[in-house]
Amino acid sequence: MGSDSDLPVMKSAAEILEHFEIPFELTVVSAHRTPERMFNFAKQADGRGIRVIIAGAGGAAHLPGMVASLSPLPVIGVPVKSSNSIDGWDSVLSILQMPNGVPVATVALNAAKNAGLLAVQILGTSDKNTLEKMKAYKLSLSEGVRFKYEKLEKTGYKEYVKD
Amino acid sequence: MGSDSDLPVMKSAAEILEHFEIPFELTVVSAHRTPERMFNFAKQADGRGIRVIIAGAGGAAHLPGMVASLSPLPVIGVPVKSSNSIDGWDSVLSILQMPNGVPVATVALNAAKNAGLLAVQILGTSDKNTLEKMKAYKLSLSEGVRFKYEKLEKTGYKEYVKD
Amino acid sequence: MGSDSDLPVMKSAAEILEHFEIPFELTVVSAHRTPERMFNFAKQADGRGIRVIIAGAGGAAHLPGMVASLSPLPVIGVPVKSSNSIDGWDSVLSILQMPNGVPVATVALNAAKNAGLLAVQILGTSDKNTLEKMKAYKLSLSEGVRFKYEKLEKTGYKEYVKD
Amino acid sequence: MGSDSDLPVMKSAAEILEHFEIPFELTVVSAHRTPERMFNFAKQADGRGIRVIIAGAGGAAHLPGMVASLSPLPVIGVPVKSSNSIDGWDSVLSILQMPNGVPVATVALNAAKNAGLLAVQILGTSDKNTLEKMKAYKLSLSEGVRFKYEKLEKTGYKEYVKD
Amino acid sequence: MGSDSDLPVMKSAAEILEHFEIPFELTVVSAHRTPERMFNFAKQADGRGIRVIIAGAGGAAHLPGMVASLSPLPVIGVPVKSSNSIDGWDSVLSILQMPNGVPVATVALNAAKNAGLLAVQILGTSDKNTLEKMKAYKLSLSEGVRFKYEKLEKTGYKEYVKD
Amino acid sequence: MGSDSDLPVMKSAAEILEHFEIPFELTVVSAHRTPERMFNFAKQADGRGIRVIIAGAGGAAHLPGMVASLSPLPVIGVPVKSSNSIDGWDSVLSILQMPNGVPVATVALNAAKNAGLLAVQILGTSDKNTLEKMKAYKLSLSEGVRFKYEKLEKTGYKEYVKD
Amino acid sequence: MGSDSDLPVMKSAAEILEHFEIPFELTVVSAHRTPERMFNFAKQADGRGIRVIIAGAGGAAHLPGMVASLSPLPVIGVPVKSSNSIDGWDSVLSILQMPNGVPVATVALNAAKNAGLLAVQILGTSDKNTLEKMKAYKLSLSEGVRFKYEKLEKTGYKEYVKD
Amino acid sequence: MGSDSDLPVMKSAAEILEHFEIPFELTVVSAHRTPERMFNFAKQADGRGIRVIIAGAGGAAHLPGMVASLSPLPVIGVPVKSSNSIDGWDSVLSILQMPNGVPVATVALNAAKNAGLLAVQILGTSDKNTLEKMKAYKLSLSEGVRFKYEKLEKTGYKEYVKD
Repeated sequence: MGSDSDLPVMKSAAEILEHFEIPFELTVVSAHRTPERMFNFAKQADGRGIRVIIAGAGGAAHLPGMVASLSPLPVIGVPVKSSNSIDGWDSVLSILQMPNGVPVATVALNAAKNAGLLAVQILGTSDKNTLEKMKAYKLSLSEGVRFKYEKLEKTGYKEYVKD
Repeated sequence: MGSDSDLPVMKSAAEILEHFEIPFELTVVSAHRTPERMFNFAKQADGRGIRVIIAGAGGAAHLPGMVASLSPLPVIGVPVKSSNSIDGWDSVLSILQMPNGVPVATVALNAAKNAGLLAVQILGTSDKNTLEKMKAYKLSLSEGVRFKYEKLEKTGYKEYVKD
Repeated sequence: MGSDSDLPVMKSAAEILEHFEIPFELTVVSAHRTPERMFNFAKQADGRGIRVIIAGAGGAAHLPGMVASLSPLPVIGVPVKSSNSIDGWDSVLSILQMPNGVPVATVALNAAKNAGLLAVQILGTSDKNTLEKMKAYKLSLSEGVRFKYEKLEKTGYKEYVKD
Repeated sequence: MGSDSDLPVMKSAAEILEHFEIPFELTVVSAHRTPERMFNFAKQADGRGIRVIIAGAGGAAHLPGMVASLSPLPVIGVPVKSSNSIDGWDSVLSILQMPNGVPVATVALNAAKNAGLLAVQILGTSDKNTLEKMKAYKLSLSEGVRFKYEKLEKTGYKEYVKD
Repeated sequence: MGSDSDLPVMKSAAEILEHFEIPFELTVVSAHRTPERMFNFAKQADGRGIRVIIAGAGGAAHLPGMVASLSPLPVIGVPVKSSNSIDGWDSVLSILQMPNGVPVATVALNAAKNAGLLAVQILGTSDKNTLEKMKAYKLSLSEGVRFKYEKLEKTGYKEYVKD
Repeated sequence: MGSDSDLPVMKSAAEILEHFEIPFELTVVSAHRTPERMFNFAKQADGRGIRVIIAGAGGAAHLPGMVASLSPLPVIGVPVKSSNSIDGWDSVLSILQMPNGVPVATVALNAAKNAGLLAVQILGTSDKNTLEKMKAYKLSLSEGVRFKYEKLEKTGYKEYVKD
Repeated sequence: MGSDSDLPVMKSAAEILEHFEIPFELTVVSAHRTPERMFNFAKQADGRGIRVIIAGAGGAAHLPGMVASLSPLPVIGVPVKSSNSIDGWDSVLSILQMPNGVPVATVALNAAKNAGLLAVQILGTSDKNTLEKMKAYKLSLSEGVRFKYEKLEKTGYKEYVKD
Repeated sequence: MGSDSDLPVMKSAAEILEHFEIPFELTVVSAHRTPERMFNFAKQADGRGIRVIIAGAGGAAHLPGMVASLSPLPVIGVPVKSSNSIDGWDSVLSILQMPNGVPVATVALNAAKNAGLLAVQILGTSDKNTLEKMKAYKLSLSEGVRFKYEKLEKTGYKEYVKD
């Protein structure tokens, strides 16, 4: 991520990776304040055995796109709604609107959790076990909703909304 | 893709996959006009050996997100600027802003080429050969720019802009 | 509705339907987390005697449009401003900008009350009694304003604003 | 509709109603240039046996909302992208963002066809025959897509895109 | 104004008119909940000796435009940022983007004070005394700034910002 | 107006003033390229007997607001959608969002005609004759619509749309 | 700056200039409330030995552009998100979208700190000492990030996020 | 600039620099396709005697910000409205909304001419001759407007608009 102020958002990606037992590194690499570090990090990533990169940043968010330009690996970009952002539009557009030749797999504003899940899905394309875990995860989403609508239908909406 | 009117945009993804010699299917699946077909397509994709899905759609573009909800595979979404779109914002936001649990790897407006490249990168995470081709592709991008700036520096901008 | 987190907004629709003595069901159906349930719900709705569907959702809100694609009934969509929404624009555009052939009757952001009223109006097109109640409701709106302007004109704005 | 310049857009609603054999009136009623006419039209509509009103307008589009305030009938609003519009946003927001108590069933920008279909669905809530026709219409949408994807899969995308 | 909830904003217009000793009426007239009242108010205004109308409303704000369509008087519109507004854009565009033939003199979001000043300026076009007061008011604005920059220059910004 | 490139838009204001037989001056005063001229123009306007100022400009449109800061007269601002504008938003917001104390009576994007009508309405607040002409003008708007809907109802929409 | 309410934002520019030991003046000059003062300030600035002007303002922010039109010096504009701003867009567009011939060097919303740094960089184009200090400053940014990522990598993200 | 497709826009900067007789280099440096080249270019610029950098790019425009992060020189950013841009917003926000510590002096969309002028003004802070030329340039802008308004006032707007 581009700044430690993004950590409260970005930690959700880490939590998903832990849940799926995917080893990962989590660090701060600023495109604007540590460009050399970003350069080295991105150039060396695939050689060091990294297979997917998740990059989150706010404002004029150049980290995901610059890493994507420097690495042949898939890069997942997380737009972060930072304090002086213009409602998050700056971050979304800076990450999403990459030119032809250099894609960034962009997820929703602040959606680090989804970035983690997308990384898992990418690894699942070549790993049966991970793919099965992803199927189970999707089932658990559906179970979570079932719990809610059963409760809602039993207690009625007036009781439910009080909780 | 959601409509054959998206084909002039989406064919760039097919061209990239052909360039990288990745086998693919290309068809029309409309979330809104053929929901059953979409359902079956998405539910069966991973069982049929498909590893990555690229879904392009315009307006209130529900195809990428719905396919992502039905399949454990990574889904790449291409927002298409269709005729009655509000400047493309509708398509971008309908694809990007997915809820927690169901990511779509969104690329830029009309960026089907980047969707193809992202699919290649995803396959490259488990295939050395594809990864090497991606490195070569990135090199070719850089060579393409070199050709241009060398010409520009030689002819001067006044001549160059006439071409 | 797509999530129980939409309930504080969506309950206003229920309250209106109770006020007009229209029987209704209220439950959670997530397009993205329970796609099969949504499918079955939407396909079976008209056969079960349901006449109008109100669907509320936030972010990339696909529920209203997907239900509309699966049912011949009129579907009223309520854009909900959820926590990581980009100011509600994502939800509004995902629901409103449906392609030709599959309309969603969209109401204002968070306007579940208006969704309830619109459902009543739709039922009123074939039920004199409901139509008369709607006329009475509109009269009550006007009376409510009269109470306010009479008070305002009597007390003066300086007193009124203190309350 | 608010102006005869909206006719090229709004005629699609008329065509749908003719297709479904629903009798209708089509005229120009301007909220801003003929407010009395609008008043009378809206106040008398339900007494004259009209059951659904479709109102299309561009810019600061007040016609749908004002008609909705004056009539107990359901009002469908069609935002029209007129010449000096700010990308259609003015029309969309002026129609959609109605206050509590006075809903307008808003469809997509320029989506008069969908307004016609929504009117048919509303009438279908009390008319079996119309409901069946709507089911048939939805089937025809799906058949239309099938024709396209079968052709696409047979000819290949390179041939298809030439047509 | 369209609702008593607009009063905390709109009272600033009243205060300005009191400051300039311009007689005025302040009341609630809802375009959507009391359309007949609005009709009568607007049609009779110039006959009753009213010379300028200030109309404030939020959301799909139709009051200023509808009053402008019904009266030959100049109408000043105040967009109000109401609770379920989409950041105020709905109100701004619903008031500003009036069609040719029916202008509304729109001021900034929530700028009821400026609406009052504009009304004073309009009356000042035919009243020397009011024009002179307006000149004095402008001078007082400039004096207010002088007080501030003199204090700032004397105390230094570090002290000033503490106050 | 701020540039002669605004003339094709701004001439509509002149045409309205001629129609109402209001004497006027029309010239180019650029806030950014001729600031002294703008200063002198604005400072001297009321002394020279001018009663209302119409100022149109595009992009970062400072002319209306600066003239308003320098003159006690009412200033009508016309946002012009110029060539490198960002969809007209820059011009609209630069003119509309004036700070407290300095109003600009803003009309719709490119709505110079409405600026002319608003000027006429302002002069009509103290001139019975002008007020009566404005009433007649409003009647003519309504007659114009009548002509159209009568034709439409007689010929049917299919014939009408061919013209 | 245009108002003393901008001081909490604009003081960051002053702090940067003090850090770099650049002498500066800080005062309030309102384009709209003190146009003469602004005129004189801008016209005399270069004659008084000022070399760079930083102008911050909110809403319809005319100060930076007007100063740029009156002075041959480089003008840095800081859009300030003021209380009744429409999310800061008004200020950003009023400062950024200057017409050809009159540039304003615009920085991010509320980015007074960056305005200060840009001023230092401009002075550094002719002052070796200042250029060296800027290099040192950039190094300190990078050191600041290093401190953070070393801590993060040592403590782990779960501990880090608690601080 | 980031691509030779930006040249039709960016050449205006070159023309201004030629007009002011400022020596310059003009080349293509792509942040995304030639990141190493960009790195070297930016790191070496101040050592090679370059004093100001103008960087133009479209879409997710990272070039200006990345160059600014790598060089102590002032960097002027030109947002370019490229073909698949979302109305230019992506480019504007990617360049403007830089984080604290790394400013980019952003000019209006496509305003390469103003970028050239800003560069001249920056050089003029330490070069009397250039400053004088800038004053003369500003005078010529004002003369250009005088020519127009004199013609307009002489011929009348009806003749003028025909040309």
